[in-house]
Amino acid sequence: MGVVHRFTGTENRMDWQDVPEKQIDPSSTRGVTGKVLIGPHDEAPNFHVRYFRIQPGGHSSLERHPHDHGVYILHGRANVRIGADQMNVGPGDVVYVPGSELHQFRASGDEPLGFLCVVPADR
Amino acid sequence: MGVVHRFTGTENRMDWQDVPEKQIDPSSTRGVTGKVLIGPHDEAPNFHVRYFRIQPGGHSSLERHPHDHGVYILHGRANVRIGADQMNVGPGDVVYVPGSELHQFRASGDEPLGFLCVVPADR
Repeated sequence: MGVVHRFTGTENRMDWQDVPEKQIDPSSTRGVTGKVLIGPHDEAPNFHVRYFRIQPGGHSSLERHPHDHGVYILHGRANVRIGADQMNVGPGDVVYVPGSELHQFRASGDEPLGFLCVVPADR
Repeated sequence: MGVVHRFTGTENRMDWQDVPEKQIDPSSTRGVTGKVLIGPHDEAPNFHVRYFRIQPGGHSSLERHPHDHGVYILHGRANVRIGADQMNVGPGDVVYVPGSELHQFRASGDEPLGFLCVVPADR
């Protein structure tokens, strides 16, 4: 049976009905919250989709792992590090982070950064 | 190495630099165009992300297949059929279509419908 997660938020304070919070490691991140939009609670066997919100000046963990990320920027600006590259992105831009590349997302503007992040379910 | 696909469109005419068109079967659809945002050209081994745009009154194919879909509505309104259910969704809503469920997306408003659609790479 299909599942709909209703959007209940605003443009840069995005929220969804009955969507679980994702636990974020505070020791390696700054100003990050997450929501699991499609995940284990939907019994999705192949991929998961999460929303992350990073406050201005905040950042995700600088990390490297075997699985890849597909990112779609919803609001705000990001400085993205992937391996030795750094790039600035904004709303509508799509970022693909291959597996085993060192990467980090920084909220570089005055507004909160928000993005969708796709990952394989098995990771 | 990471990849960025730059957004070059407008709010309901979304486009990206150097992003390939997806071929759509015109015999079973109406008013549908597609773009592959993350796919084989990115050598993405686990999942692909596509953008679909459906003109008012248009619809995707009524279909059933083993793989699942993760959908995020970007603009416009949709009437979504999943199995025996029908639901109306709009911007920010998230739809999960499990594998092997009959499904179809219809652009139900006066504006074009646009959404992201995640699928497993191996399908």
